[in-house]
Amino acid sequence: MKFRVISKDPQCEARTGQIETAHGVVNTPVFMPVGTAGSVKSVSPDELESLGAQIILGNTYHLYLRPGDERVARLGGLHKFMGWNRPILTDSGGFQVFSLARINEIGEEGVRFQSHIDGSRHLLTPEAAVGVQKNLGADIMMCFDECTPYPVSHEYAAQSVERTVRWSLRSKEAADGADQALFGIVQGSIFKDLRMKCLEKLTGIGFDGYAIGGLSVGEPKQEMLDIVNWLTPQLPAQAPRYLMGVGTPEDLVEGVRAGIDMFDCVMPTRNARNGTLFTSRGMVHIKNNAYTEDPGALDPDCGCYTCKRFSRAYLRHLFLSRELLSYRLNTIHNLHYYLELMAQIRAAVREGRFEQWRSRFLAAQENMTVREAED
Amino acid sequence: MKFRVISKDPQCEARTGQIETAHGVVNTPVFMPVGTAGSVKSVSPDELESLGAQIILGNTYHLYLRPGDERVARLGGLHKFMGWNRPILTDSGGFQVFSLARINEIGEEGVRFQSHIDGSRHLLTPEAAVGVQKNLGADIMMCFDECTPYPVSHEYAAQSVERTVRWSLRSKEAADGADQALFGIVQGSIFKDLRMKCLEKLTGIGFDGYAIGGLSVGEPKQEMLDIVNWLTPQLPAQAPRYLMGVGTPEDLVEGVRAGIDMFDCVMPTRNARNGTLFTSRGMVHIKNNAYTEDPGALDPDCGCYTCKRFSRAYLRHLFLSRELLSYRLNTIHNLHYYLELMAQIRAAVREGRFEQWRSRFLAAQENMTVREAED
Repeated sequence: MKFRVISKDPQCEARTGQIETAHGVVNTPVFMPVGTAGSVKSVSPDELESLGAQIILGNTYHLYLRPGDERVARLGGLHKFMGWNRPILTDSGGFQVFSLARINEIGEEGVRFQSHIDGSRHLLTPEAAVGVQKNLGADIMMCFDECTPYPVSHEYAAQSVERTVRWSLRSKEAADGADQALFGIVQGSIFKDLRMKCLEKLTGIGFDGYAIGGLSVGEPKQEMLDIVNWLTPQLPAQAPRYLMGVGTPEDLVEGVRAGIDMFDCVMPTRNARNGTLFTSRGMVHIKNNAYTEDPGALDPDCGCYTCKRFSRAYLRHLFLSRELLSYRLNTIHNLHYYLELMAQIRAAVREGRFEQWRSRFLAAQENMTVREAED
Repeated sequence: MKFRVISKDPQCEARTGQIETAHGVVNTPVFMPVGTAGSVKSVSPDELESLGAQIILGNTYHLYLRPGDERVARLGGLHKFMGWNRPILTDSGGFQVFSLARINEIGEEGVRFQSHIDGSRHLLTPEAAVGVQKNLGADIMMCFDECTPYPVSHEYAAQSVERTVRWSLRSKEAADGADQALFGIVQGSIFKDLRMKCLEKLTGIGFDGYAIGGLSVGEPKQEMLDIVNWLTPQLPAQAPRYLMGVGTPEDLVEGVRAGIDMFDCVMPTRNARNGTLFTSRGMVHIKNNAYTEDPGALDPDCGCYTCKRFSRAYLRHLFLSRELLSYRLNTIHNLHYYLELMAQIRAAVREGRFEQWRSRFLAAQENMTVREAED
């Protein structure tokens, strides 16, 4: 994997760049749709490509449990398995183990847990997590880490950071020889001293990219932004910077401003399946009675398949009828919104007008929020 | 609506023809995918067109209850509402009322029932059923009928046929002036005298096409084929003949041989969502362990998107993981199988080799059944 910064905003930390992988080039800042179990829920690989998705995220935890990473390897790797030929980043499984599985023990060796699918017992270690990601054939692998909950004591967070650092070193050793990039994950909750310590030790080990983990786990929005704004510029400038599991459109804009290059989040896809849609005029809850006979497009300014072909009334009907097409049309729209947002951000940064663009974007979001509250 | 027979097989009743509607031409014999609630479950209108669907079926009962036919009318009709610009046939609601709703009373006026969605009380009459279909803007409407269960006494079936005839006359009067075709439905269960009486009275009233209803409701397969083989050739030759709710691939072949022009059935779409797939080599239950690491196409002889792009192992994984993409990829394949089958049938009839084609098809099906039983 190669990374180069192409342009840097003179007024803030925002930058554009390119990540070169064996499966093609990714223009940053980039949003990665989440394909948890070998599929970005409800959409086909062709649709993802048409939407302009450059790279997607796969979940180590899910694919390890089902269908099994060794099976995926025997079938030619995750790209071939799911019919997606562009780059894939896999998470380390850490976050999912802590959020989905029943944890039996967190020890130095790794995490003992029970599957959320069938209760079977497993041990995930740094070596195992990297082994899974090697089997999946991810272009970018993530170090196994402990994602602490919020709130957490400074004492526990400190111990956890030490362990995450030791696990990161073991991850790096396990990845040795693989033709796949490996990113380290900076943990430390909302404690700046721990974040800094973690970052220093990870850069000491040396990774192909650096992620900020453990945010958007329940802490107040301002705490998250404070950490992102303070920490991101201190991540090595010559490597991609990845803010994990974040976030709202505003979060992406603020993250880019702080110098983040990569994002992933289930928000556009999960919200789509819940009938909550991002539009240029604010959030639309498609089940609202207001749309019962609304012949207009979901977002008149949007060029996605859903907006070009169907009315709000039809989308509402599909959603209320729990028609499978509902989830897909909504997902297409929300992913288009996120991916188009990132394309606008890249253009604004490249053309040196990101701060202006951001001010207008945030003002418009503010107006929408006021309008939604008044409705 | 205009119908013309284009070719007729000299050895059997099979024929090809064309139905001209305001939304385009339909080449018969034709299979109509079922779009119950304004959507052929899981697939988009674009996909249906790519699959070669010429006409789809909409359900009066479902659309009357939700979103409501008057609403659909205000939104420009069902074609516009669901983004499908080719022909639509709507059923009369009769079959669904009897199979889905809780019936409170079947009287001369019509059927009083409670919605399966919210228990609300409704009265469906011939006039109401036609009114709904006018509002939906169907190219082809169906007369309101009583679909008797199997088995049913001759006495009840005789009374029911009389009522269906009276309802058909009222349907025709209600349809007067509409720029939409109206088909009569021949009922009479497995009683030939009742079927013949019903047919005579319906042809006396005069309709744009004639359907055989009340089959595939639990009677032995041979009973169904007997009725179809005996009755179909007696339906007016100059009008389309429609076998409602049927059936398996073999049923379609036998129906065509008897002189049927139109079919609809939920089998390809419903089976797809249950993981049961039609292939040139027999039925595939995609969840079977045999496919766990099978890298091959679902059907190596199939040219559909699913077969061209994905392995059996992946389709199995999606199905077991209940991924939304599973239902769609399976539906695309099964619809392709049915629509391709009909295209082959049309070509065989047109080229005067239908009986040969049929013999080969049935022998192949027989072999597959034996092979499946041995597996």
